[in-house]
Amino acid sequence: MTVITETHLRAEMLKGTLSNPYFISHQHRLTPAARDFLRDRGIKIEVMGSNSIQNIVQTKEWRIPVGVSNRHVHLSPHDVEVLFGKGYELTPYRPLSQPGQFAAEETVTLVGPKGILSRVRVLGPARELTQVEISRTDGFTLGIHPPVRLSGSIEGTPGITLVGKVGSITISQGVIVAKNHVHMSPDDAKEFKVKDGDRLMVQAISDRPVVFPEVVVRVNERFTLDFHIDTDEANAANLRTGDFVKVIGKNGELFRARA
Amino acid sequence: MTVITETHLRAEMLKGTLSNPYFISHQHRLTPAARDFLRDRGIKIEVMGSNSIQNIVQTKEWRIPVGVSNRHVHLSPHDVEVLFGKGYELTPYRPLSQPGQFAAEETVTLVGPKGILSRVRVLGPARELTQVEISRTDGFTLGIHPPVRLSGSIEGTPGITLVGKVGSITISQGVIVAKNHVHMSPDDAKEFKVKDGDRLMVQAISDRPVVFPEVVVRVNERFTLDFHIDTDEANAANLRTGDFVKVIGKNGELFRARA
Repeated sequence: MTVITETHLRAEMLKGTLSNPYFISHQHRLTPAARDFLRDRGIKIEVMGSNSIQNIVQTKEWRIPVGVSNRHVHLSPHDVEVLFGKGYELTPYRPLSQPGQFAAEETVTLVGPKGILSRVRVLGPARELTQVEISRTDGFTLGIHPPVRLSGSIEGTPGITLVGKVGSITISQGVIVAKNHVHMSPDDAKEFKVKDGDRLMVQAISDRPVVFPEVVVRVNERFTLDFHIDTDEANAANLRTGDFVKVIGKNGELFRARA
Repeated sequence: MTVITETHLRAEMLKGTLSNPYFISHQHRLTPAARDFLRDRGIKIEVMGSNSIQNIVQTKEWRIPVGVSNRHVHLSPHDVEVLFGKGYELTPYRPLSQPGQFAAEETVTLVGPKGILSRVRVLGPARELTQVEISRTDGFTLGIHPPVRLSGSIEGTPGITLVGKVGSITISQGVIVAKNHVHMSPDDAKEFKVKDGDRLMVQAISDRPVVFPEVVVRVNERFTLDFHIDTDEANAANLRTGDFVKVIGKNGELFRARA
C-alpha cells in the first residue's frame, strides 16, 4: 500500500503533472488532507485497477452531463388560470437545458396531509396534464409516498393540493418521484449506439461513485444530452448540475475493456 | 415484448405462483397498475437477462440488511456535561443495531451559518471525540458542506454549533457526511470472503436498483451485519431500514456468474 500525502500532491502540482481526474490504483491510499486538497481544487479521484469496474468501461469514455431537477410542477392551461387568474400565461424566468422549456417566475405551495412545501417552481410551457414531481425526501415532508415513474405516467399515483396566487386546486392523481432518464438527440443516440427506450448504466464521477444501472434513454430531435436525476439521487452521488456521469454499460450489460 | 398486466398478476397470485421477488426479463414490460399491484404487496421486481448485472452475481445470493442513519451526533463526556449539565449521563432511548450502541433521549439543535436543524438525536455511549453526521441535504439547510468521511476521520472537516438543554458548544471541526460502510462479525467476513478494509459492491433490491460500488467493510467481534447508509442514499435507492442489498462484487470486481 502506498500513501499519497498532500505534500506529494503539491509537488505534482508544481511539476505540472497533477491530472484531473487524478488516477490512483487500489494499492494507493490518500490521506484525508490529500483528499481535501483535490476536492478543494475540483479534482476528481479515479480509482483504476485490473478488472476494476472502471476498466470494464470501453477505452473511449462516454460522458453525459448531469441535470439535477429540484421539486417542480407542470400545469395544464386550465390549472394555470385557476391558480393565477383568468387568461394568465406563465412568465419565463430562466431557460432549462431542454430547448423551449423554462422555469417560470410563478411558484406554488404544495399542501400534503402531513406538511407543506412553499415556493415550488412551475415549469413551462403549460402541458396537457398537471403533474407534480417531488423527491422521496419531499414525500416525507408532505406525507405522501408516490411511486417512481417516468413523466406522463401518472395512472394510480397520489394527488395533492396546489395553492397559487389567486386560487387552489386539488388533483386526485399526478404526483410522482421522477425515474431517472437521459435525454439525447438522434445524433447522440447514434454515437452511443442506443435507441429510444434502451437503458444505460452510468456511474457518477465523484467521491460517491454511485452506479445508476437502469437509466431510460429518451431520444428526440428537440433533446439536448442530459442525465436527469432528482435531488436525492444528486446528493447520494455528490453530483450537481454540470457534473458528469460516465456510461459503463447498456441494457443491463457492462461494457468490456478492450484488450 | 410482453406486457404484464395487473390481471395477469392477480391470476398468478390465485394460482400461488407469484414469487417475491417477482422475476421478469428485459423482454417484459409491466403496466403501471401491475407495478403498483406488486409495490402495494411489498413484492420486489427483479429484472433478469443474459449478461444482466443480476446474472453476473454468483449463484448463491448474498444479502445484507440495510440500516439507514438519520442525522445524529456523538458527544465526548466533556461536551455531554456542557450541553446537559455537570455530571450528566446520556439516557438510552432505544438500542441500535450495533450491540451496546443506543439512541439517547437527548437531542441537540445544530446551528449553521445558513440555517438550523432541531431535535437532532444524540447517540450513546459518549465517545472520545464529538462528531456530527449529517446528509448532504442537511448541509444545504445548515449552509455547510462537509466531505464524505468514515466515522472518526474528522481532520480538516468543518465545525458547527451544538445547542443542548443547558449550554452550547462550537466545535472547530467534526462535521462529516458518513461514507457508507458494512459492519460485520469475523464469521460474516469468513462467509463473504472479505477482510477489514475490503470494499464490497452492493445493489439495492428495490425499484431504484442503485449500485454502491465502494462500500468499506468493517470487521469486529462486536459488529452485527448491517449496511449503513444516510438518508440521501436511502431515498435515492428507495431503501428503508430492514430492506436488503445484494452483494455483486468486491474490491472493484463484479462477481462472475457460474456456468
